[in-house]
Amino acid sequence: MYFHALIPFKPMNPKTRLSCVMNQEEREGFAYAMLQDVVTAVNRTGCSATLLSTSPYTCETALVAVRDEGLNEAIDWALPQFHCPALIIMADLPLVTARSLQRVLSTDADMAIVPGRGGGTNVIFLKKPNCFHARYYGSSFQKHLAMAEECGFTVEVIDSFRLSTDIDEKEDLVEVLIHGKGKAREYLEALGFTVMHEKGRVGVARGEKILD
Amino acid sequence: MYFHALIPFKPMNPKTRLSCVMNQEEREGFAYAMLQDVVTAVNRTGCSATLLSTSPYTCETALVAVRDEGLNEAIDWALPQFHCPALIIMADLPLVTARSLQRVLSTDADMAIVPGRGGGTNVIFLKKPNCFHARYYGSSFQKHLAMAEECGFTVEVIDSFRLSTDIDEKEDLVEVLIHGKGKAREYLEALGFTVMHEKGRVGVARGEKILD
Repeated sequence: MYFHALIPFKPMNPKTRLSCVMNQEEREGFAYAMLQDVVTAVNRTGCSATLLSTSPYTCETALVAVRDEGLNEAIDWALPQFHCPALIIMADLPLVTARSLQRVLSTDADMAIVPGRGGGTNVIFLKKPNCFHARYYGSSFQKHLAMAEECGFTVEVIDSFRLSTDIDEKEDLVEVLIHGKGKAREYLEALGFTVMHEKGRVGVARGEKILD
Repeated sequence: MYFHALIPFKPMNPKTRLSCVMNQEEREGFAYAMLQDVVTAVNRTGCSATLLSTSPYTCETALVAVRDEGLNEAIDWALPQFHCPALIIMADLPLVTARSLQRVLSTDADMAIVPGRGGGTNVIFLKKPNCFHARYYGSSFQKHLAMAEECGFTVEVIDSFRLSTDIDEKEDLVEVLIHGKGKAREYLEALGFTVMHEKGRVGVARGEKILD
């Protein structure tokens, strides 16, 4: 089956909740490393990808559409242009693998969805994208289920730790260091991040510095 | 296939990291509600269960062994007594479903393992429990993979959001309210917990009080 992936991406000053442990240049490098992991996994499923980028950007393995409106508006602009199934996947999912994506793409339902932590939505796969509208921010998982009902879609919720783990905060970095296999993990290691053990708990350290 | 589940459980003063939002009696009630969800899912797979309880306790749907030593010691005491495959599952996984457990139990490998967030281990399934020793606390996921290698086991890592989500902190409660389907969700709702939306982020509130 042919389908096309949409990957929203913010190249400039992304991931501000990581500001406590990375400067802006490092956050931009880390966001790009995570994006590469996502694009690689998408490509391995045999699928092409378009970045919906908030500013001009060059990517060797994906098309780039520059859209300076909000996330929902950018997706709603792109979706009606698809005449094939569409995969909407966030750029901050560095644990993604082709195998985990394959579980999404092989759904028998009209739509497959993967929740993010805290009520969010990390991945949506739409066999018939036309009627759908994006409802990101807040409890978007529940809003997207409601939208699917409005469209009359059958829905499968895909139960995946790898795809549910979006990286926003310092505490999330440990997941990349433990379970990551790609560029994002390499990037963190190059910056000196390591898994730290203290009093039976696990956290991250950067060089000699423990990050509380 | 017949197998038996081991569920470590602490009835008295459990889940102290939830003390900021629940008193001791409420935490004990919540821990029991989560346990019920786990035992129910285990039973639905056609399997019996033994609680490894840190103090005397009565449970209608599981055997209870009172063990006042540490978690690893209690499991290592129990495992050699099994002459069938063993499932070691934590009691604080209220998103568990029989379907998610079935993915663990149907592994072709000698051992299946589900990581918890932050380097932990939430579920281990052992077809030949005898040689294995528990290594909980700290980066137990990596320690258990090393133990499997020592035993010469083939390993499958099961990729499940439901089974990776252990409930320890206030921030985790929102997952129960959004994705839970059992007693733990009912219990939180009865205490007045609700999903709260503010500035595009999601959290929990109790009654009128927003919990920062």
